[in-house]
This record gives sequence, structure tokens and C-alpha cells, in this order.
Amino acid sequence: MLDRFKVPEADQVIVPEHEVRDATQAIFEAVGLEADDARVATDVLIANDLRGVETHGVSNQLRLYLASYKAGDLVARPKIAVERETMTTAVLDGGGGLGLHVAPYAMQLAIAKAREAGMGAVNVHNVGHMGGAGYHAMLALPHDMIGVAMSTSGRATVLPTWGAEPRLGTNPIAWAVPAATMPAFVFDIGTSQVAVNKMRLAARVGAKIAPGWIAKPDGTPIMDEVDMPAEYHLLPFGGTRELGSHKGYGLGAVVHILGATLSGIGPGFMNASPGFHLMAYRIDAFTDLAKFKSDMDALLRGLIETRPAPGEARVVYAGLLEAEEEAHRRAVGIPYHSEVIEWFRSAEREYGLHFAFT
Amino acid sequence: MLDRFKVPEADQVIVPEHEVRDATQAIFEAVGLEADDARVATDVLIANDLRGVETHGVSNQLRLYLASYKAGDLVARPKIAVERETMTTAVLDGGGGLGLHVAPYAMQLAIAKAREAGMGAVNVHNVGHMGGAGYHAMLALPHDMIGVAMSTSGRATVLPTWGAEPRLGTNPIAWAVPAATMPAFVFDIGTSQVAVNKMRLAARVGAKIAPGWIAKPDGTPIMDEVDMPAEYHLLPFGGTRELGSHKGYGLGAVVHILGATLSGIGPGFMNASPGFHLMAYRIDAFTDLAKFKSDMDALLRGLIETRPAPGEARVVYAGLLEAEEEAHRRAVGIPYHSEVIEWFRSAEREYGLHFAFT
Repeated sequence: MLDRFKVPEADQVIVPEHEVRDATQAIFEAVGLEADDARVATDVLIANDLRGVETHGVSNQLRLYLASYKAGDLVARPKIAVERETMTTAVLDGGGGLGLHVAPYAMQLAIAKAREAGMGAVNVHNVGHMGGAGYHAMLALPHDMIGVAMSTSGRATVLPTWGAEPRLGTNPIAWAVPAATMPAFVFDIGTSQVAVNKMRLAARVGAKIAPGWIAKPDGTPIMDEVDMPAEYHLLPFGGTRELGSHKGYGLGAVVHILGATLSGIGPGFMNASPGFHLMAYRIDAFTDLAKFKSDMDALLRGLIETRPAPGEARVVYAGLLEAEEEAHRRAVGIPYHSEVIEWFRSAEREYGLHFAFT
Repeated sequence: MLDRFKVPEADQVIVPEHEVRDATQAIFEAVGLEADDARVATDVLIANDLRGVETHGVSNQLRLYLASYKAGDLVARPKIAVERETMTTAVLDGGGGLGLHVAPYAMQLAIAKAREAGMGAVNVHNVGHMGGAGYHAMLALPHDMIGVAMSTSGRATVLPTWGAEPRLGTNPIAWAVPAATMPAFVFDIGTSQVAVNKMRLAARVGAKIAPGWIAKPDGTPIMDEVDMPAEYHLLPFGGTRELGSHKGYGLGAVVHILGATLSGIGPGFMNASPGFHLMAYRIDAFTDLAKFKSDMDALLRGLIETRPAPGEARVVYAGLLEAEEEAHRRAVGIPYHSEVIEWFRSAEREYGLHFAFT
């Protein structure tokens, strides 16, 4: 994550992982989730916070999920139904449950299909937010599979290239690939230039908005560094056509088609619920597993041994900084903005709980 | 394609599609390809030229392929061997043949597997250039499937984010999705900011290089509009980290891993031959086919009905302009640079052929 999004040190409170994990699980159980689902949902948020993906950790997300449970927009104990199924594919009705625990359920089904057939893909609709695609793709890793996860967003916030009306969500997509000894390759991006959650985080930490990240309400890309405007639209990644925004727009459309349209949610932009597309490939259906993992080590090591450009400290690959951050935060704790700690205090009072760190 | 890459009108010669198709097929047969393979290879190049993807048509590519046949780097009549196979997957040794006809062979195998099992994926190594990923993904369309095609490039030309040494190829990736009455969604991109072939085309038409497209030999991104420098490296799409080059770099690495590493070609960057990953999804393994195609119509129509931003004429989607260009060029012919016609004349003499348009 760019430095501009980091919580300023003066505002940081460091919390040991297990304390925020226990608190988050207790909150999920307090709103009615079964213990197993609460454990899985919590693991998604804490894994994101450990990996430094705090846009998708407890800070931004937990309060939104609780509001949705209260509003009746999320079902605490969903009935998941299989709508269509083949040996390699399935489409699930998520029963209105939170994607944080429904997506792992679907991904495990994709993994089971891939184990039998070489590949598996499971789609989900009528479901809440998955909490970042990377976590779910990574579920394939311990099975020596390649994982793919994508999700449409609940609402349209991103302009098509040359457009003035938002048509697609930020539509994240992730691939995760195991190696033998190197940290796994985990490529996890939004298809907008900047995530909705990053804009929220930027507001909290007072960060500037860089050129080419957003557009005026009339669709004109803003090409100066600015304070966050009151009204704006997100641009697809690339920003402008000359800088390749058709690539972000097109990849966002791929996620819409595979996640939502292929889930059968309906015509056009219908987008009330996200649509998930979760896939697993068994590596040994293609090549020798041990050789593949050793070849991955060589590839990833080669990438980080690339000579850096002038002024750059090092070259990394997708997933490396996150793995380093995870090792660090597991040891020393996770930094949260003091406002987030305040929020946990209010949740503690509201649900009659007791948290170690508040 | 951006206007800067178009052949200037004064340099254009318009050739009817069937004339350049016959000439190209005759050249492929003259270098030893079987008639069926020559027909398929020709169709890839002419389809690209019809769709306005002239970076991957006869202008840039044909002479390179002929040089490779002469140098013994390509085999005119390759023996394709299955190295590993499951009901959903296969890895092929392409026998050193040209990807233009080996990739369609592999894609048809992926489609056959998807027909039986719901999904199919076929990898190929020891093979030449596929001639653009979009064509091969589109082979799924008449089967009411979603097609995916990706290929690594024969050599490393693209810097990793923050790096000074090229590590990945331009590694194209494409998805093709059918609709009922609207032109198909065909998203086909390179993972560099600009394709090697576009740089070649820019040289031919004297186009300027835009900011953020390339880097100096030491890895520093060039952020001004410049004439093409003698030496440079390509940047991943996004250009710089602030503008999202980690997204282009990461997607390029995905293509390397799925196309090359998963084909078993070897450790690290080993890249003498491209590696292909070709995939097909049967739509009715997920949802009702007729509904899906009608929903796609609504989605694609909705995208082009988006109000344009100030100064923009219209909003399009991936594949629309190419379909419009194809209809136009089928009717009026394909514009080639006069230098390309000259090249056909020299090929005519060399192989003792006769072309209608030269």
C-alpha cells in the first residue's frame, strides 16, 4: 500500500493479533453468527490486517457489516442453496449471508471439485461482501492449487473509459500461486484506479488524491494532486485512455461478467448483491508439482533480485510485502487508528462484551 | 487503437480481404505448412487486420515468421505431443510449430474438454507466437462458451515495477464472451503499457511516445512525450507505481505463471519459447444459456448508452470498435502501409507466386 494511506504514527494504537481477533469474533457471535462462521469471517478481516491490507480489515469493514445486519440487509445464519452443479462447476444462492464466510465455503467446494476433476469454479450470488479477493484465492495454496477469486461490488462507482456515469463496481480480482520456500505469489487488485475503501482511509488519514485517480462528477479525469473533493467518480485503473484506462475498464467488465452475469443475477448492471467467481486449478493436472514449486521459487527470487531503478530501494513481487508485514505484525501487533479503538469501545458497550485492549 | 498508430492516409493502399488472405495463405504454403494449418494461420492474421488490430496482422508479423522458418527456429509441420492430460486439462509440446495454428488446435481441445466437463484448460510450450490472444479466446464463442487465452512472450522486454532489468514479456491475455445480438465482448490486452508491435508500428508511422509508456535504459520512467529513443525498456501497464504499474506487473506475472511455469518450461524466467494457457468455460454449466446471452446484451447495450464525459463522442466496450471495423473492412478492404505492399511484392518474387493486389 502506498505510504499516503498509512495510519500516522501519532494516531496509532498497537494491538496484539489475538486480542483483536477475539474481540471481532465475539462481535460476530453477538450479532448471531454461528461460531464456525464467526471464526472464518474474523479470520478474513484479521488476515487482511496482518498482511497490511487494512482497507479490508476491521477498521473500515466491521462497522459496515454490523449496520447491514441491523438493517436486515445481511442474514446472520444464511441457508446456502446449490442452484446448478456439474462435476467442475456450481452456482450457489448465498442466502443473503456475509461473503466473509460464504466465499470460503464456496471456495472449498471449488477446491473439492478441482481435486476430483483438475479444475473447479463456483459462483455465488445473493451474498454480502467477501472482504477482499486475495484471502479467498489463497485458500487454494495449502492444497497445492492455484486459486482465483473475483467479486463484483454492490454498487456502481467506477466510470467506463470516456463515460460520465458509473457503471461497474471496483470489482476486485486475485490470483494466488504457491511456491516451495518463497512466500506465495498473491496478486490482489481492484479494477478501479483506487479502491472505495482507500478513499475512506484517505479521508481518515487526510491523504491527498493523486492525478488520474478520480474524475469530476461530469466524468472529466482530475489530473492534478488534490484534496478529496466532496463529489467525484472513480476511474478505472489506468485513469485515462492514453494511460490505459481501457485495460482497467475491460478487466472490471470481465469481473462483472464472470462474477455477476454468469451467476445469473440478471440483465445489465443489476448489482444489488455482489457476485463471486471462485476457481481452483490443481497444479499436478498440468505438470510435476515439486518441479512447479521449485520453478516458482526461482521465478520469485529472480524478480526480487532484479536491479532496482535509480531512487528505488528494491524490486518486490505481488504478495511479498504482505508476507513480510504479516511476519512483523504477528510478532509486534497490528497498528490501528485510535478512532478504530474508540469504535471497539462503543461496540463493547453495545453488546455487553469485554475486550482485552480497550 | 489510438489514432497515433493509424497508417497515415497518404501512405495507405486498400486491399480487398480475400486478396491479402489468398496471398498470405500461399506464402505459408510456400514455406511448407500443410494447407489446413496455412489456412488457420492466415485466418489469425487476416482476422486481426479486419478487426483493426494491425499490430498483429500481416504488416508486422508475416515477415518475422518467415525469417524464423528460414532460420530453423520454427517447424513448418510440427509433431504436437500430449505430455499430461486429465479430463479437464492437458499440456502439449507444440513441436516447435507456429502458435498461429498450434494455439487453435489447443483451444479446440480445451473446448472439447469443456463440452464434456464444464471447463477445460490446455497449455502449450515449445511453440511459436500465437499472433494475439483475442483470436484464440474468440474460438469459444460459436460453442456458447467463454474463452480465455494468454501467452508469454519469447523474450523479456518489460520492467517489473521499480526495476531496471526487463524480466517479463508483454504477456497478452484475453477473455471473449458471447452475447445474443450485440457484438461479443472481447477484451484483449498486453500487460505492458504499450506492445512491442505498437512500438514497431509507431516507428513506421512516426508516432510520438506518450508519458509513462517506456523507461530509460536505467529503469527511470520517461514522463514526457518524446520521439522514440534508440534504447529503452517497456513499462508494465500503469507506467509508474503511483499510477498503478504494480497492476500491470502483477498481471504480467500471472500470465508468466499460468502460461509458462504451469507448462513446465523450467525455473525462473526461462522463456525461449512462449507458453500458452487456453481455457474454455461452458456457460450452461453455470446458468441458463439464453438468459445469459440476453443479460449480456443488456449489459453491453447499457455500457454504450452511458452518457459520455465532456469532449468524448461515445462510450464503447471491449470488442465493439473491432467488430465495427471488421464490418467496414470486409466491405471496403483493409488499409495497408505502402511499405507492406512492397514487402508482398518481394515475397511474390522470392516464392514465385502471383498476388492479385501487387
